[in-house]
Amino acid sequence: MAARIIDGKAIAKRYRAETARLVEEFAAEAGRRPALATVLVGDDPASQVYIGSKRKAATSVGIGDRHRELPAEASIEDIAGVLTELAADDEVSGILLQLPLPGGQDASALIDLIPSVKDVDGLTTQSTGLLARGEPGLRPCTPRGIITLLDETGIDLDGARAVVIGRSELVGRPMAQLLVNRNATVTIAHSHTADLPAVAREAEVLVVAMGRQEAVDDAFVAPGATVIDVGIHRTSEGLRGDVAFAEVAPIAGAITPVPGGVGPMTIETLLRNTLDAARLQAGLPLSDA
Amino acid sequence: MAARIIDGKAIAKRYRAETARLVEEFAAEAGRRPALATVLVGDDPASQVYIGSKRKAATSVGIGDRHRELPAEASIEDIAGVLTELAADDEVSGILLQLPLPGGQDASALIDLIPSVKDVDGLTTQSTGLLARGEPGLRPCTPRGIITLLDETGIDLDGARAVVIGRSELVGRPMAQLLVNRNATVTIAHSHTADLPAVAREAEVLVVAMGRQEAVDDAFVAPGATVIDVGIHRTSEGLRGDVAFAEVAPIAGAITPVPGGVGPMTIETLLRNTLDAARLQAGLPLSDA
Repeated sequence: MAARIIDGKAIAKRYRAETARLVEEFAAEAGRRPALATVLVGDDPASQVYIGSKRKAATSVGIGDRHRELPAEASIEDIAGVLTELAADDEVSGILLQLPLPGGQDASALIDLIPSVKDVDGLTTQSTGLLARGEPGLRPCTPRGIITLLDETGIDLDGARAVVIGRSELVGRPMAQLLVNRNATVTIAHSHTADLPAVAREAEVLVVAMGRQEAVDDAFVAPGATVIDVGIHRTSEGLRGDVAFAEVAPIAGAITPVPGGVGPMTIETLLRNTLDAARLQAGLPLSDA
Repeated sequence: MAARIIDGKAIAKRYRAETARLVEEFAAEAGRRPALATVLVGDDPASQVYIGSKRKAATSVGIGDRHRELPAEASIEDIAGVLTELAADDEVSGILLQLPLPGGQDASALIDLIPSVKDVDGLTTQSTGLLARGEPGLRPCTPRGIITLLDETGIDLDGARAVVIGRSELVGRPMAQLLVNRNATVTIAHSHTADLPAVAREAEVLVVAMGRQEAVDDAFVAPGATVIDVGIHRTSEGLRGDVAFAEVAPIAGAITPVPGGVGPMTIETLLRNTLDAARLQAGLPLSDA
């Protein structure tokens, strides 16, 4: 039996409508709208496209747009100044520093200038610590989006064996934490893992964030497993993931395609995080609490 | 063949001598000694004993003793005041707030007043975040002590299958992070895990922090596995661990006894963390970097 295809686009569309509804509800309750401050340094065309999509999406659900641009030659101090100003601004709910910075500067000290209640990317040390302790807070967008996909697909995580391949700060590590917090039994596998296919086959839920095109084939997947593909690779034949879809789909119970799986949820989670940031600052619980 | 017994007392003794040497080295280099500020609220006899042992151990390796006591009826503001004062005091390297607080008050907001460079218990949100990202920082004492035990026993963690049973903030979660940072393939198991013995048997390194007396028997242990027992239970026949030692020792490759296994290392790690706190504040790398 072929796997159920997890339709990220359809789930994202429903989720966005729900975000728009929750934003209106918040606005009615709090007397103001959430606002997202996006900070773009330099004029990298890809970054401009990404940040444009985020601003447009935010506006579409009634979130205020507070965009700031700095020239590529802006100093660390210049960027820090803008972030500090936005951190202190009561009208700004969420702050997003578009990465990477021009020149490949290390952004971690800058990101830590964002207060955890405004950290809509969930990347500050403080937010990472809250997640690692299972305490309420804003979570990194891609892993939080994957939890939404799993929930919307009706996958029961409680007690399930989950394997996360990859241990990046952005995806693998926070993904494992979110799965532990949802009571899954979680294995973190990575480049040093011995017999990776055998470890992956233990998974009822397999999240692949290796960054290697179509590296996960049918040898990695137990029959009926749910397979979440975080990879995105541009090829002459279109976008491909870390999972060899054609080989894995006949075995898996459910699988995300690339494109149209994990990708569409990331921006949706950013919007929900912005709402949640506004809720935290207003002393309200998180929207999914 | 019977398991090799991991002699925590002997390893702790060697480790303490090394800490004393490193403290002298630091004092010669920095022109001052590390100092540990211990904060005790109330007069719980067990807490008094614990904090007395810590102060004595610190003094024995040449770490300065800066003890503070507050009455049981001290308010949160009183305790916060002391912690803030110690945080600002350049002569204090490390700050330890003895837990639990009287009356079972939630200590997490108080702990977060300790700057991460003085956080010798490794329990602040900031320290938790640094660990979860694999960045340098002070680590919780029990898990860091376990890594030392494993290293001193010659266990190769790189690529090894490790299973941690338990997901507490104090032990299980940071233990899993430390093992990931050492390139182990790590599974986090807990009360919701299905078929816990089978999951545990996948381990080459099994860390048990369940808090249930002798709950782990031979069914949980693969032949030759290294078994680390974090449990401590007082019984009429003496101290017992989470592992049924007599049943597991014949199967395991190496095993920590209770008492005399993990326990003795915890205080040693506190001393090393205090040295490392002083090193961080002096702009020097961690002692094991």
